[in-house]
Amino acid sequence: MTFGAKTSGSDDLKAIISAISTLVEEATFVATAEGISFRGMDPSHVALIDISWPNSAFEKYECDSDIKFGVRIDEFSKLIKRADKKDSIEISISEQNMLLVTVGKNKKYKMRLIESSATDTPLPKIPYDSKIILSSSKFDKILGDVQVVSDYLTIHTSDSKGDFSGKGDSGEVVIDLDKDDEGIEEISSKEDSVGTYSLEYLNPVVKAVGTTAGFITCEFSSAKPLRIEFKVANIGRIHFYLAPRVES
Amino acid sequence: MTFGAKTSGSDDLKAIISAISTLVEEATFVATAEGISFRGMDPSHVALIDISWPNSAFEKYECDSDIKFGVRIDEFSKLIKRADKKDSIEISISEQNMLLVTVGKNKKYKMRLIESSATDTPLPKIPYDSKIILSSSKFDKILGDVQVVSDYLTIHTSDSKGDFSGKGDSGEVVIDLDKDDEGIEEISSKEDSVGTYSLEYLNPVVKAVGTTAGFITCEFSSAKPLRIEFKVANIGRIHFYLAPRVES
Amino acid sequence: MTFGAKTSGSDDLKAIISAISTLVEEATFVATAEGISFRGMDPSHVALIDISWPNSAFEKYECDSDIKFGVRIDEFSKLIKRADKKDSIEISISEQNMLLVTVGKNKKYKMRLIESSATDTPLPKIPYDSKIILSSSKFDKILGDVQVVSDYLTIHTSDSKGDFSGKGDSGEVVIDLDKDDEGIEEISSKEDSVGTYSLEYLNPVVKAVGTTAGFITCEFSSAKPLRIEFKVANIGRIHFYLAPRVES
Repeated sequence: MTFGAKTSGSDDLKAIISAISTLVEEATFVATAEGISFRGMDPSHVALIDISWPNSAFEKYECDSDIKFGVRIDEFSKLIKRADKKDSIEISISEQNMLLVTVGKNKKYKMRLIESSATDTPLPKIPYDSKIILSSSKFDKILGDVQVVSDYLTIHTSDSKGDFSGKGDSGEVVIDLDKDDEGIEEISSKEDSVGTYSLEYLNPVVKAVGTTAGFITCEFSSAKPLRIEFKVANIGRIHFYLAPRVES
Repeated sequence: MTFGAKTSGSDDLKAIISAISTLVEEATFVATAEGISFRGMDPSHVALIDISWPNSAFEKYECDSDIKFGVRIDEFSKLIKRADKKDSIEISISEQNMLLVTVGKNKKYKMRLIESSATDTPLPKIPYDSKIILSSSKFDKILGDVQVVSDYLTIHTSDSKGDFSGKGDSGEVVIDLDKDDEGIEEISSKEDSVGTYSLEYLNPVVKAVGTTAGFITCEFSSAKPLRIEFKVANIGRIHFYLAPRVES
Repeated sequence: MTFGAKTSGSDDLKAIISAISTLVEEATFVATAEGISFRGMDPSHVALIDISWPNSAFEKYECDSDIKFGVRIDEFSKLIKRADKKDSIEISISEQNMLLVTVGKNKKYKMRLIESSATDTPLPKIPYDSKIILSSSKFDKILGDVQVVSDYLTIHTSDSKGDFSGKGDSGEVVIDLDKDDEGIEEISSKEDSVGTYSLEYLNPVVKAVGTTAGFITCEFSSAKPLRIEFKVANIGRIHFYLAPRVES
């Protein structure tokens, strides 16, 4: 078995590991000739992350048979954070079942792998009626604006208009989206849609991926899951799915 | 009843709310045709804040009958902090007795008002023998210098000289004020004066108002309250009164 | 008795006090005509700091008879931190057995001295087989790289090559030192050497002295103490000795 993958910088891997760490403590990655992927849900099954990182996004990539490897995300994250922005990161697997992580030219880490516990997690298959494309920094700011009054974000679209809102014990907020605003690229809807989603899951993942993502795509339908796509290295992507709030 | 007030930026309102939050948890504002005012004491009645914010300091101001409105300061503060430096903030009151707070162009908050509990708080009427005008950043630094050895600041003036000092279990400090020092504008006294004041109250309010205030004016007499005037928007002002330490 | 010492800036004294504070709570300094010195061990006798600060490193220095003075390091540290980078710091001793500390032009502190408890601490007398000279910022980074997997740093040299490494429950790391790397000035060894040292002591002292030190010199022999030399004011120095790990 030969497996080796080398990035040309550290930002994308940092964003991926950071995003995963908001949902799970242990992660199982799958490497094939096509690239590396990850899929996992949080323990309450409210959120799901689906990552696809194709071989073409790496500076060097080699994998001659499919493998799965499990890591403790916080341990992996600590190693990755030791990389400078421009440091390449190279991962491979040793014969002693350790993950070899070479950071930059001369930092060589070995990390104990854990038993991979990957179960097949099916993706929600739903048509999305509405789409909003906006910069991750603008989205992060809006989440902050809503969080001061609520634990939930409501997204509403009607034709090519949209707004984010929230309501809590102390008050409420509505943030109108204006297509001409800096940081907003597209608002479109086939049907008027309104969905409410937990900031407890949304906020950490948006902060985790940070500005690495550039523009992000939010898609949803009324009372259906929200899907957010973050771009990684312009080729790969992180899909983040979040179940809608069920009013009790 | 019509009431609406709009600032041209957010710094002044942030400074005002921040200053009030160092003393009370709930605040009652009074709006009249002349402007907005606030007066309140901390629960131990050691410190008093008196704010006057005239209509001319606003970009837009309208108030056709006197009204009082009460807010939870931490909730109000959280909303206001969502404003960027240049964002205008517009407040008005809805028919459902909610405070409407519009931040910038398209963030519209509604905040639950609370029952206003304003009681008439008389201001200390005392002649001030001594006056020191200095930059708020210099004053902030001096408070820090004194706090490393003491919980109290002693101010002393004699003719056109002055010093700040403090004394505690571990040691003491004297900081001579030099009229030629950068950040000091005036030191004057009709009578030699010495007063000692709690840093527990002074430090937070000076930090809260921060550099928004530019130069601040400290006035006091021996064993009498200290009054500090912070300028707001070059027109309005915050008066902060602090009772002198009573030696036990 | 006349004693007075004045620095031309505050960085060196800050670094010295900061380094001492990682080991002890009370410190006894010795001032002689030659300068100021300090020697002390941590309570477990694992680490030792030996400081020599000659009179020539001061802007002004006067001491006509040997004196010892004891201070509580955290209290002294708080005062010193009130100095700006360019502020001179002048220390002397009052007749009431107080340490007078003048920070800049007009901040005058008095600090209660404590009974000096200096006992003669002999220095480890050992030949050092290996030497690594590197920038303090590079060393600090390496300590961080190792700490993510281990509580101990292992240093290894062989001829003019060297590496830092660490091993823990979750994994291990090796960082090869390359003489041509930026931040590395010298790697030399009379004999192949390998020593393991606690990051619990190393990390704080390297952070405490910080970039004030510029380049630092690490010397050690197999299974013998490590000695690190930090330069102070280009004339004085801090020697930090750390016992090797005893495998249990």
